[in-house]
Amino acid sequence: MDFHSKFIRRREELGSLLCVGIDPDIAKLPPSLEGNYEKLFLFSREIVDATADFAVAYKPNIAFYEAFGSQGIAQFEKLIRHIKIHYPGIPIVADAKRGDLDNTARQYAKFFFKELGVDSLTLSPYMGADTVQPFLEDSSKLVFLLCLTSNPDSAQLQKKTFSETGRTLYQEVAALSETFSARNVGLVVGATHPSELGELRTLHPDRMFLIPGYGAQGASLEEVIAVCGENSLINSSRSIIFASSGSDFAEAARKSAESITVQMKKLLSF
Amino acid sequence: MDFHSKFIRRREELGSLLCVGIDPDIAKLPPSLEGNYEKLFLFSREIVDATADFAVAYKPNIAFYEAFGSQGIAQFEKLIRHIKIHYPGIPIVADAKRGDLDNTARQYAKFFFKELGVDSLTLSPYMGADTVQPFLEDSSKLVFLLCLTSNPDSAQLQKKTFSETGRTLYQEVAALSETFSARNVGLVVGATHPSELGELRTLHPDRMFLIPGYGAQGASLEEVIAVCGENSLINSSRSIIFASSGSDFAEAARKSAESITVQMKKLLSF
Repeated sequence: MDFHSKFIRRREELGSLLCVGIDPDIAKLPPSLEGNYEKLFLFSREIVDATADFAVAYKPNIAFYEAFGSQGIAQFEKLIRHIKIHYPGIPIVADAKRGDLDNTARQYAKFFFKELGVDSLTLSPYMGADTVQPFLEDSSKLVFLLCLTSNPDSAQLQKKTFSETGRTLYQEVAALSETFSARNVGLVVGATHPSELGELRTLHPDRMFLIPGYGAQGASLEEVIAVCGENSLINSSRSIIFASSGSDFAEAARKSAESITVQMKKLLSF
Repeated sequence: MDFHSKFIRRREELGSLLCVGIDPDIAKLPPSLEGNYEKLFLFSREIVDATADFAVAYKPNIAFYEAFGSQGIAQFEKLIRHIKIHYPGIPIVADAKRGDLDNTARQYAKFFFKELGVDSLTLSPYMGADTVQPFLEDSSKLVFLLCLTSNPDSAQLQKKTFSETGRTLYQEVAALSETFSARNVGLVVGATHPSELGELRTLHPDRMFLIPGYGAQGASLEEVIAVCGENSLINSSRSIIFASSGSDFAEAARKSAESITVQMKKLLSF
């Protein structure tokens, strides 16, 4: 089943837009977990098993595994395999922010889409459309282009305006995404920019948005849901996976995911 | 020894600016090589051993290894270890084009700089300066920000002009690099844009440039050397590593690297 169909089905089953971000910073893992890089898998697996009833999608960030090189990537592979075997209906967005020349991009596409078999991948659009194209050869996949990110310095380049088009860099990336099918190319838009999020949704009604950074970093859930539309995944990482730093971290993650889901269902109208 | 000192010493020893790009596309490897992903290391090691007399720096692109997941990354790790043990004076630029939020960027920095111990890394600047900063905690390292890339669609975003500053996106990234020491932040500038390369060198005389794409894709070596200045690495990948598709690939790579070095020495004045 393609990314889009998996997403729609999950969204309708759960009545929410919750994407569970899996960012297992080794320094923050509960001391009860044993092993070195093996912890990355053990922790992530427990988080997945505890939150699967509430995850419209999972978004593991490969950087936290890549920190340990090939051994860390092996833990990432085990995690993806675990999700695909036990929760085949939940789409996986690999957060990798890759982007390279076409023959090189093809290598990344081979790993993420063929070898691992994730449903979606985040990409950096800096180099232009010909570096996105190689990721679209399998039309069942969707890539999210970084558009307006949630970090403090995101405005430095992304909010500057091009004189040729009157569009900012982030608006230009959103316009570029329209040259591809909405089933294959979506946008990353940080919840730290709620008014721009609303403006992008108005201009790009059908496009999938991946929205990180609500809560502590950005707008409230109410503000995000008021403008994001139903083709969105609203990501929460730390407030779920690090809800408790004790040995009850999985149960705490489940409660946190459940509580966000309840909030979302109240705010959403579908 | 830091990146800068290694680079200067190699440049002076060899009288050239040649960076040997190691992009082992598995589909192009000589049929004489055995094994599956193990080939990636065997091929890369032979290329390194054959060209070490002529490489001012090596630039392996991790995508070609990551295509095979953790097993591929293990081959990349073996390659880096091989270079560091046998050729400790040759700086290594890991071509990875990473870029992410600060706590995430820190994970990538941990892998490339602490675990692997490469001297330099390529980064995408799309997200802004706070995503570059975590890579600079070890001041012996240098990162190359993508500035003006060598692919056909590079102009799509990079050559558009911002009305706020009158600078194009690539000029803005170059200006951003000036907020960091020239010993720590350099720029990737494709040889497919020789006039912009000259303009950037005039504005940024001390900054390290990494210049891919001369020859088939872009300007001639003469044109590049006429404008790039001495703080540059001029990359050649395919014309060296795939100089022969037969079992004599290593010898052919050596000859090609030697021939480029001879050409460079003629054109360079130091």
